[in-house]
Amino acid sequence: MNEGRQTMRGAVLYGPGDVRFEERETPRIVEPTDAIIRMAVTCVCGSDLWPYRGVAPIDAPTPMGHEYCGIVEEVGGAVRSVKPGQFVIGSFATSDNTCPNCRYGYQSSCVHREFVNRAQAPVLRVPLADGTLVPTREVPSDDLLPSLITLSDVMGTGWFAAEAADVKPGSTAVVVGDGAVGLLAVLSAKHMGAERIIAMSRHPSRQKLAREFGATDIVTERGDAGVARIKDLTSGVGADSVLECVGTQDAMMQAIRATRPGGSVGCVGVPHGVALDGQALFFAHVRLHGGPAPVRRYLPDLIALVLDGKINPGKVFDLTLPLEQVAEGYRAMDERRAIKVLLRP
Amino acid sequence: MNEGRQTMRGAVLYGPGDVRFEERETPRIVEPTDAIIRMAVTCVCGSDLWPYRGVAPIDAPTPMGHEYCGIVEEVGGAVRSVKPGQFVIGSFATSDNTCPNCRYGYQSSCVHREFVNRAQAPVLRVPLADGTLVPTREVPSDDLLPSLITLSDVMGTGWFAAEAADVKPGSTAVVVGDGAVGLLAVLSAKHMGAERIIAMSRHPSRQKLAREFGATDIVTERGDAGVARIKDLTSGVGADSVLECVGTQDAMMQAIRATRPGGSVGCVGVPHGVALDGQALFFAHVRLHGGPAPVRRYLPDLIALVLDGKINPGKVFDLTLPLEQVAEGYRAMDERRAIKVLLRP
Repeated sequence: MNEGRQTMRGAVLYGPGDVRFEERETPRIVEPTDAIIRMAVTCVCGSDLWPYRGVAPIDAPTPMGHEYCGIVEEVGGAVRSVKPGQFVIGSFATSDNTCPNCRYGYQSSCVHREFVNRAQAPVLRVPLADGTLVPTREVPSDDLLPSLITLSDVMGTGWFAAEAADVKPGSTAVVVGDGAVGLLAVLSAKHMGAERIIAMSRHPSRQKLAREFGATDIVTERGDAGVARIKDLTSGVGADSVLECVGTQDAMMQAIRATRPGGSVGCVGVPHGVALDGQALFFAHVRLHGGPAPVRRYLPDLIALVLDGKINPGKVFDLTLPLEQVAEGYRAMDERRAIKVLLRP
Repeated sequence: MNEGRQTMRGAVLYGPGDVRFEERETPRIVEPTDAIIRMAVTCVCGSDLWPYRGVAPIDAPTPMGHEYCGIVEEVGGAVRSVKPGQFVIGSFATSDNTCPNCRYGYQSSCVHREFVNRAQAPVLRVPLADGTLVPTREVPSDDLLPSLITLSDVMGTGWFAAEAADVKPGSTAVVVGDGAVGLLAVLSAKHMGAERIIAMSRHPSRQKLAREFGATDIVTERGDAGVARIKDLTSGVGADSVLECVGTQDAMMQAIRATRPGGSVGCVGVPHGVALDGQALFFAHVRLHGGPAPVRRYLPDLIALVLDGKINPGKVFDLTLPLEQVAEGYRAMDERRAIKVLLRP
């Protein structure tokens, strides 16, 4: 079990562009509500690029990774709902799943929330295991792992974008951002019945995947021209739903301006340097909702959709590397050579 | 009719604190879609105080007033739905009621919208009469005029605050702002079934009216202390719905921070100097909706509620003056001697 001082190697960010795969202690149970997971696969997230690029500065070497699934190795004495040997998927944000925010379905604002890090490693300690992890009935086959790990963050985040943007059967949805979250937002909007899905993308490989996931139109223009193009496509007034999956000022304003009065903007790109002018927002007349996606709420349903073959979000992985090459994974995503990188321990 | 160059007197703002009641030409039909209204009553709006106080500077002498109801005197050749002799109420924003935004119920973002001004006068030209005005079946009695004119703006705006904040039966609503709109937001939340309505107010006369309209709790603290008090009253997480009826940075942030994750903020105070930090908004996890209230959509239902005696929003008027004393009306509201001032031509 954990009697020795075992070590392993995991990803640590030292500064812009400097990811190292270095030795550290193998995690052990600390709290009785913890679980220890042996990682099946892990991956690099678009949001990891904010600190990697120095846009979100770090104070000290920072262990990285918040997407995970794998086999439970050990649980603390208070854990009741998962047990060793089970395959589990958990949210990037831990939750007790009992506090008022959890009961309202906003587990990613749990009053005991911690943001997971250290998941780009072979073993992970997950706090609040009962409220954070969801086990599958059987250990899934290897080919399902790419889709299942997306449920830990990016698929659930795309789903929240569509939910927050109030996508309904027959509606017109615009997706701003063609990273993994944007592409999975397209898939989510399709699944929720959007009739027209306009993906804003300039990259042929991402346009192709967007179409595969359900995009009916591609808009390559940005800014004023992008907004004008969306209005052309939507009776001159803008879309019912706009899914903002970037987090920059330009992307936010593009999303708000592409939405019709009374329409909704779902914001899941973590904002960096964004300030919204009160009057511009007021007269835009849109609904705005977003934040860290409550993926814990979606996990049971999304796991079922994946296991039943109804959705295949794992297609966003276009590069698979051994975990020890995690630094190359960051580089490939930073340089847009890869949409999303799967890492195998 | 309009053959002569008749004149009348109306309110004109010349600069901060300088409202004059001065002679100008009596309005006449300009477009075939216009109507000319003989004002029954008019009033001063809280939003008139922004330019009156110099917070929203004006470039030139500006005729004032956007709340109106009265008897149709004349209509243009294209007007079909109202006729001379009818009593009508209209929105502060004109609308054709046929464009895509109008059809979605956002008439205050009509593609042909004009904001009414010049209503603090005995006669008013209303563009787009068919899409803007709603006639009553009979000419209402004089005692109903105060309630009916609130439907032109403040009552509909309070109603939109409650709708935008997603007030539902059983929910907990907080109202930020104790002006006429805030007080009518309390009334609206009550009518929509809110179980607990917390009015943030420091003024005894306004607290009293808030309670009369349905407030169950009064919170006098503001800022951090106000937010802490709301959390105390709401399981530590914040309210389901917060109705922002002021429009300042402090009021907006107070509203956002008093809302629980997944809850909604309805914003109807016209923002002045407001900038929302993207990350603070993101992690607040709230829904935000607002803008100029689509009062045209609400007019038929709200007129029925007033005529049936179900609501009495006219109670917000605690000072009535002859129209020619309009300058004193502004002063009384600016100095908070009056909640809202009714003007009789």
